[in-house]
Amino acid sequence: MAKTKSAWSKPASEALRATKKTSLAEFNTRATPGFSGDSNQAAELLTERGAVFAALQEKLYANGRSGGNRSVLLVLQGMDTSGKGGIVRHVIRAADPSGIDHTSFGVPTEEEKRHHYLWRINRALPAAGQIGVFDRSHYEDVLVVRVHNLVPPEVWGARYDEINGFERDLVDGGTTVIKVALVISHDEQRDRLAERLDRPDKYWKFNPGDIDERKLWPAYQEAYQAVFDRTSTDYAPWYLVPADHKWFSRLAVTELLIGALEAMELDWPPADFDVEAEKKRLAQS
Amino acid sequence: MAKTKSAWSKPASEALRATKKTSLAEFNTRATPGFSGDSNQAAELLTERGAVFAALQEKLYANGRSGGNRSVLLVLQGMDTSGKGGIVRHVIRAADPSGIDHTSFGVPTEEEKRHHYLWRINRALPAAGQIGVFDRSHYEDVLVVRVHNLVPPEVWGARYDEINGFERDLVDGGTTVIKVALVISHDEQRDRLAERLDRPDKYWKFNPGDIDERKLWPAYQEAYQAVFDRTSTDYAPWYLVPADHKWFSRLAVTELLIGALEAMELDWPPADFDVEAEKKRLAQS
Repeated sequence: MAKTKSAWSKPASEALRATKKTSLAEFNTRATPGFSGDSNQAAELLTERGAVFAALQEKLYANGRSGGNRSVLLVLQGMDTSGKGGIVRHVIRAADPSGIDHTSFGVPTEEEKRHHYLWRINRALPAAGQIGVFDRSHYEDVLVVRVHNLVPPEVWGARYDEINGFERDLVDGGTTVIKVALVISHDEQRDRLAERLDRPDKYWKFNPGDIDERKLWPAYQEAYQAVFDRTSTDYAPWYLVPADHKWFSRLAVTELLIGALEAMELDWPPADFDVEAEKKRLAQS
Repeated sequence: MAKTKSAWSKPASEALRATKKTSLAEFNTRATPGFSGDSNQAAELLTERGAVFAALQEKLYANGRSGGNRSVLLVLQGMDTSGKGGIVRHVIRAADPSGIDHTSFGVPTEEEKRHHYLWRINRALPAAGQIGVFDRSHYEDVLVVRVHNLVPPEVWGARYDEINGFERDLVDGGTTVIKVALVISHDEQRDRLAERLDRPDKYWKFNPGDIDERKLWPAYQEAYQAVFDRTSTDYAPWYLVPADHKWFSRLAVTELLIGALEAMELDWPPADFDVEAEKKRLAQS
């Protein structure tokens, strides 16, 4: 832990938080804001801090089981190959699966299309004590939907405020919302897609549509910029995580989770029964 | 892997499988059937075999994403403190959370009570490519329900055949069903409950009702015996895992999962696109 403090010049939540000046066009996807360590140090820290994250997560779970209302929602957004799945595999895996509620949001199903776009989101929200993890999210409804003109501009245009209101309610209900945008460069995406085409054990991750989307890169950049400008709020800020270095993005998200859980200042739930009386009953059983 | 073969005299699936002779009354909860190693060896193997399990799970997930219909359902049953949660925390955690669908079944909610007992089970079944993990299951409807006379005997009595039919359909649909009973001794349960009463960080795991249930131990033994006698089928057998030694039960369940996944003989899904053509498109993008 001492090592962490020395390698981070400021908390990840400060170093990565979107501000009014955030400009995706000028964003350095290879930087490691706030962190001065290298990949080896990051890998070591990931194990060490993963254990800290897991211990805090157990406490959140314990509180949820004991009437507490706190939960966490980690929203993962990013272009194809930005490493959303890797965050789940390498960061979230540290936690107890009983306390993780993971949902991938793909192209809406026929049933989902018949409902409001927040319908499927509401159904997937974490219960008390749980860490919900969204691989893509309601933000697709102002990203892919906007880029492809799937609904008229006045419809998606109204969604930013609606999403802010929705997240306000979540936070008021006890959920800490952590919104992470994994930001890779156009070049890095090409390399990662190329790897999927080079390795038969990765073919399943590739979809020809990924290249079509890639061609719309500037439109996506613009749509993401609007998301940061319009939906990074005090209560549910966006964190822009440079993701060309997977070792950095994984460590950074671990730190964001730890920071959120520490801020809850949770204790172990007290006994809601008479401990001594139960000991006697147990001895007689 | 060589070590595994030497430490196991036969596959866990053979060593632990319920037979017509299975008698819970005579079951040795401290035994390690089929395994000749000690706790240190088991701990080492758990890490090594956990990685094998994770690699197989990724292949299952890949197939599910590519149109395959295979999935796994791990049913965990056992008395309080038998280690169901520990299996999730120490075995399932090796896998990618994206491919795990975990559900705890507690006392039915009001909504659940208004439906058939398999309603909530059906809603929690794993999708293709997923490993579903049930912490308790539909078997509660012939265990706690039977012990407490929550419905008349003719109602729970009809459920064994119904469950067999239900599981037959699951298996026919591509799901491998692994039913694990974690079997601890009456004494071991007392020690574990005592630990929960001794440690403030474990109070939240304790419920005074656990002692009431403990007093019904013989009735539960009888109800479990009926489950093994009537629902251990060729297509969905029960495995009785001695669970006084957590290091054994965790390793054993890992081996059961590996065995089930290996039996599927899955390959990486082939490309459903023209790899060379996509490489050209990518180079131009």
